[in-house]
Amino acid sequence: MAGNTFGTIFRLTTFGESHGVAIGGVIDGCPAGLKIDLEAVQRDLDRRKPGQSSIVTQRKESDLVEFYSGVFEGTTTGTPIGFAIHNTNQKSKDYSHIKDSYRPSHADYVYDQKYGLRDYRGGGRSSARETASRVVAGSIAKQFLSGLSFNAYVSQVGDIALDKNYQDLKLEVTETNPVRCPDPDTADRMIEFIKAVRKEGDTVGGVISCVIGNVPVGLGEPVFDKLHAQLGKAMLSVNAVKGFEWHKQWDGHLFQGSF
Amino acid sequence: MAGNTFGTIFRLTTFGESHGVAIGGVIDGCPAGLKIDLEAVQRDLDRRKPGQSSIVTQRKESDLVEFYSGVFEGTTTGTPIGFAIHNTNQKSKDYSHIKDSYRPSHADYVYDQKYGLRDYRGGGRSSARETASRVVAGSIAKQFLSGLSFNAYVSQVGDIALDKNYQDLKLEVTETNPVRCPDPDTADRMIEFIKAVRKEGDTVGGVISCVIGNVPVGLGEPVFDKLHAQLGKAMLSVNAVKGFEWHKQWDGHLFQGSF
Amino acid sequence: MAGNTFGTIFRLTTFGESHGVAIGGVIDGCPAGLKIDLEAVQRDLDRRKPGQSSIVTQRKESDLVEFYSGVFEGTTTGTPIGFAIHNTNQKSKDYSHIKDSYRPSHADYVYDQKYGLRDYRGGGRSSARETASRVVAGSIAKQFLSGLSFNAYVSQVGDIALDKNYQDLKLEVTETNPVRCPDPDTADRMIEFIKAVRKEGDTVGGVISCVIGNVPVGLGEPVFDKLHAQLGKAMLSVNAVKGFEWHKQWDGHLFQGSF
Amino acid sequence: MAGNTFGTIFRLTTFGESHGVAIGGVIDGCPAGLKIDLEAVQRDLDRRKPGQSSIVTQRKESDLVEFYSGVFEGTTTGTPIGFAIHNTNQKSKDYSHIKDSYRPSHADYVYDQKYGLRDYRGGGRSSARETASRVVAGSIAKQFLSGLSFNAYVSQVGDIALDKNYQDLKLEVTETNPVRCPDPDTADRMIEFIKAVRKEGDTVGGVISCVIGNVPVGLGEPVFDKLHAQLGKAMLSVNAVKGFEWHKQWDGHLFQGSF
Repeated sequence: MAGNTFGTIFRLTTFGESHGVAIGGVIDGCPAGLKIDLEAVQRDLDRRKPGQSSIVTQRKESDLVEFYSGVFEGTTTGTPIGFAIHNTNQKSKDYSHIKDSYRPSHADYVYDQKYGLRDYRGGGRSSARETASRVVAGSIAKQFLSGLSFNAYVSQVGDIALDKNYQDLKLEVTETNPVRCPDPDTADRMIEFIKAVRKEGDTVGGVISCVIGNVPVGLGEPVFDKLHAQLGKAMLSVNAVKGFEWHKQWDGHLFQGSF
Repeated sequence: MAGNTFGTIFRLTTFGESHGVAIGGVIDGCPAGLKIDLEAVQRDLDRRKPGQSSIVTQRKESDLVEFYSGVFEGTTTGTPIGFAIHNTNQKSKDYSHIKDSYRPSHADYVYDQKYGLRDYRGGGRSSARETASRVVAGSIAKQFLSGLSFNAYVSQVGDIALDKNYQDLKLEVTETNPVRCPDPDTADRMIEFIKAVRKEGDTVGGVISCVIGNVPVGLGEPVFDKLHAQLGKAMLSVNAVKGFEWHKQWDGHLFQGSF
Repeated sequence: MAGNTFGTIFRLTTFGESHGVAIGGVIDGCPAGLKIDLEAVQRDLDRRKPGQSSIVTQRKESDLVEFYSGVFEGTTTGTPIGFAIHNTNQKSKDYSHIKDSYRPSHADYVYDQKYGLRDYRGGGRSSARETASRVVAGSIAKQFLSGLSFNAYVSQVGDIALDKNYQDLKLEVTETNPVRCPDPDTADRMIEFIKAVRKEGDTVGGVISCVIGNVPVGLGEPVFDKLHAQLGKAMLSVNAVKGFEWHKQWDGHLFQGSF
Repeated sequence: MAGNTFGTIFRLTTFGESHGVAIGGVIDGCPAGLKIDLEAVQRDLDRRKPGQSSIVTQRKESDLVEFYSGVFEGTTTGTPIGFAIHNTNQKSKDYSHIKDSYRPSHADYVYDQKYGLRDYRGGGRSSARETASRVVAGSIAKQFLSGLSFNAYVSQVGDIALDKNYQDLKLEVTETNPVRCPDPDTADRMIEFIKAVRKEGDTVGGVISCVIGNVPVGLGEPVFDKLHAQLGKAMLSVNAVKGFEWHKQWDGHLFQGSF
């Protein structure tokens, strides 16, 4: 109802504001008997962390996930996996001057109108920090879906677009540059462009593509809950995402989100 | 779970195959006390009907909706609205020759793999005929949301795209041409193009845009169930839709689906 | 949300008022490939029908179920099973004299308060006639659960209670008397008592017991959705039911509802 | 799906095993703007705590609830309320001798059969300790429902039953004796009986009654989600509860659970 749950069989419910005590969630429905690598979850969280390079936001977030339940001796038990990421920068600074100023293109005004009040110390619940909880659940889901392959990369920044099909890219080089584009030349051009935009105090949008391989025939449910409809909803619910496209090919699915 | 329900407060559950006895659904959660114009629902169904002009599929569907419950003396009672549309062309013809042939770009093969069998007399549950039930629910929802405005139109066919912003269009002329494009000149070009494509035995995709006016601030739920995420899921779950984009402007929301 | 859906994997959504066009529902999640005996469903509906003997309400209801979807060549297809039971006694008689009189111990007043209006021609949505839709879904569920046994019987009427454990009863004689008590002597006493109560223009409550055999270990879900909690909810939601008890034994489950 | 969520508008999802790091949950849908007394929540938790008197289990549980989100400056914000109760007695003792012994009348065997493994250090997820998370959510719900009154008390222990109607009881004395029976004489007899049973190394069941006052007309949803059906499900899902009864009276609702 209140928008903080995603999924049916494997279901994530999240909580937490950017300047509260902690963010976190509950994963209900993770199958029992899955040997789980909790350090891999932390590594995926580290990949999400802002401030890793000079071309992204310099905001610091140290995201250390603690697991509270659902895993026993390295194996999932079929019971819900509760987890929390404590916020480390809840400084007791004075926010009263921003209490009534709404940041443009943020949800501040909408929250005030909808709920009559908000945690004005930052983005609160509408902060993109919320996606850290999604990373935890997604990372565990990825371990369960070990037979499939997931390769996401940046395919466009502003007008600079990859002009190659994913089959012609070396997806394993995606992580070797800060913009995470698998084509080194295009990556360089994207980085230069972002730096120029930053210098002018501006930001720029782009496109992320994800290639999912070995998708079983019949995955998803018919009519309203088609796989691509569910994926589209998930992607469109991420802050700043403005579009979603999907293409089905014999050797993989390709999904794209623009922001 | 099984994919045939959409929505939470106003919730639609649908049933029906293209060649079964009837299609239909249940709308649960429609508020009580709504004066309802059931003939307007039928008119919206008539707009959906295939075979209305020479540029669309010539398949005939006569969709007459019957309401079974939830409306008393022209007013909704708060109880579920059950409805059915009987299929009139369930001919007893011999389908055995197509029993094992899968039509390309259809869900036939996927249904067989997922369920072990299917109603092979046509698209069955995967037929676009299923959207007739959505039209019934959408038409009633539109009557409830009478304070908002909804204007959908075709903004692109193949490479022929409207080059005007929606504010510069006369949206009231949308219904005056068979392609439903509010710009008469562009509409003519689209129609010519479709006719040429049809002559070659082919089909062509396009883009539908929808302008929603007077959207209340705070509509939708935060995080996973944002308004545009729910709309995106709804649109992406319609047969043949490949993409969804949204734009927020001070005087309306603009949503687009490409197919 | 609005109370007209039960279940998660096998999910029933119902609609219909006692004096509307039809009642019915949608069963979503019935597994594909189930050979289904639709006449057995009709027989179960016939067992529910009021007016079958002199000791029950003499109200006539002719419940003929029509299936609209989800079954092809006698087998379920995995798609939703839509069904309707048309109401045959929607007489156009004048109800205006009861428009504002609330029948005691009925939900008339509550519906008016909650929704601001109601279908005053009868119980409307709150009529026990609604259970006919449950019988349809339950009958299909029973066919799917053919490995389990279900034996329900009347174990108490007023103060006349069966003093035997279910293991000591011949459950197959339950259907041989109108009160459906598997002990002929107790059945006779119950029938005499009901006749006496009827003569005084009164009604009397009782207890129904149900023995479910061969329940698989681990059926149901832990914590909030335990099997007996879900069964209790289902039973308590039936009109006039006031209590629910469960007992687990090595050779079966015993569930009881009092009304 | 997986049983760890209760409710729709005000929805609780819980996690945690008796010997894991923490138990806790997420409350989604608590209305914004509720002035909340978090110390009152802790007091309700303290009331639940085992080991408070000589007539109950001597197991020690120190339940200190931490709130992670959803409350800002003493007021709910409409965002999910995350909370955790850390387990303090996760001793590193050797449990290997009980790894394969199933305690009678516990869910150990069922969990092993259902999931293929379990956290064998104690009841794990099936421990009654799980109800602490329900107390947190219930205590907050009670603050929201401040216009209603809730009075629960023990009305029967073994064969010793209160023979007074709730209108004839002083419900405010319930908390003055360890067995929580509002009639001092009956309370004394219950306590003596429990002590005698304890001496023999046995336990005894009983009945809890709850009187809810000022229930608004129309609370709950019709058909499957009737108020008493939802309450029945909630009560029946608590460990060891075997039955539920409800009675409606002009001056309050009375609900009973037997265990």
